[in-house]
Amino acid sequence: MIGRFRHGTEILCGQVEEDHVRVDRGMYYDTFHLENLKILPPVSPSKIVCAGLNYVDHARELGMDIPERPVIFLKPPSAVIGQDDKIVYPPQSRQVDFEAELAVVIGKRCKNVSRENAVEVIFGYTCFNDVTARDLQKEDRQWTRSKSFDTFAPIGPYIVEAKDVDAGNLRIMSRVNGEVRQDSSTSNFIFDIPYLVEFISHIMTLERGDVIATGTPHGVGELFVHDVVEIDIEGIGILRNEVV
Amino acid sequence: MIGRFRHGTEILCGQVEEDHVRVDRGMYYDTFHLENLKILPPVSPSKIVCAGLNYVDHARELGMDIPERPVIFLKPPSAVIGQDDKIVYPPQSRQVDFEAELAVVIGKRCKNVSRENAVEVIFGYTCFNDVTARDLQKEDRQWTRSKSFDTFAPIGPYIVEAKDVDAGNLRIMSRVNGEVRQDSSTSNFIFDIPYLVEFISHIMTLERGDVIATGTPHGVGELFVHDVVEIDIEGIGILRNEVV
Repeated sequence: MIGRFRHGTEILCGQVEEDHVRVDRGMYYDTFHLENLKILPPVSPSKIVCAGLNYVDHARELGMDIPERPVIFLKPPSAVIGQDDKIVYPPQSRQVDFEAELAVVIGKRCKNVSRENAVEVIFGYTCFNDVTARDLQKEDRQWTRSKSFDTFAPIGPYIVEAKDVDAGNLRIMSRVNGEVRQDSSTSNFIFDIPYLVEFISHIMTLERGDVIATGTPHGVGELFVHDVVEIDIEGIGILRNEVV
Repeated sequence: MIGRFRHGTEILCGQVEEDHVRVDRGMYYDTFHLENLKILPPVSPSKIVCAGLNYVDHARELGMDIPERPVIFLKPPSAVIGQDDKIVYPPQSRQVDFEAELAVVIGKRCKNVSRENAVEVIFGYTCFNDVTARDLQKEDRQWTRSKSFDTFAPIGPYIVEAKDVDAGNLRIMSRVNGEVRQDSSTSNFIFDIPYLVEFISHIMTLERGDVIATGTPHGVGELFVHDVVEIDIEGIGILRNEVV
């Protein structure tokens, strides 16, 4: 697992191994104890491309037909926060929801990637919470405002490299204050990850570090101030944030 | 007017003065003839925030009520091109439209800016073409795919500093192959620029170099391969791109 950290004024990237982080300094390795580091978002994406409705169970829950193609939208880089950072409840909204999602991290600049070659451009995976002001989403016809508030894109805590995981068959859960709220599997994807990479990269050039959020399963629900929300994806990690 | 240029392998920023560019080197100035430079997009935004329907005449044309608040959406940085760069007609679409827009360039990182203080965070203005695959916009309910193709965010050619222009009273036109297609004034804004800065900065932190596109007037229309489209804004400049 690979993470980004702050140690004093220095920003580090390194391999996470149990309670410490190994940082490659070129000629040697430095080791830091995790407790001495602040975990940062593991990537700094130039864009976050999200797929809407992408779980069979979530589509059924909403009584909607299975879409023919993904609906995509963007979240701005300014919304990104990392592990243990706070989700700030905006005064404009009266209903802020969590949405557990598996995030794909792009490993190299690419365009027009076929689904067969998607594996070559995927660096790894991490947890993502597509925080959404549901009332504003309904009010606007476009989803941008409701999903673009600062702190509305928690990501992390670390990146698991693509070679270490079968991303199409992972249990994905969300918990609020320890209580399970979503519990599904990425095997319920309507559009699998290679297809999403193909679809999106035929629209826009993807950059190293860009993020594709793959949609959320059934069971999304509301957050309140002081809630702690966790996105828990099997083999990937647990992303935890408090609402303030 | 301030522009970004490529000269051989060097990227330059400088003041445009008639046929040459003056580049501040700290201890002295360098002067380059424009004909020896490739004009680049004048900014490299971390995000492009666009306001939907924002001209009274365009709202009337569509038979729509004047909205209570702006509808916003994002275009990705990967869509940005500059003066004389080509707009690439994507194979997925059968109708690609131009949309002439005045773009606001943010001068410093800011959040929660009041309309009274908006002037302090605006660096300047430039021309923007919100190129849109109209058929895909109608097909999807979200606008992201139709507006996010590579080359769909022409911007430039230069930035005019805020102090040098009254942005709320500028003639704004588009021409296709020399024929006028849009001809309006930013005095027809439904939401003026200070209001847009207030509204958007209360959602997301704006970074230096971020762009707010202020919406398009009536008369949007279709582009075809080999067309040359110009966005001409009084006192700002003429942004010209060919469709290929």
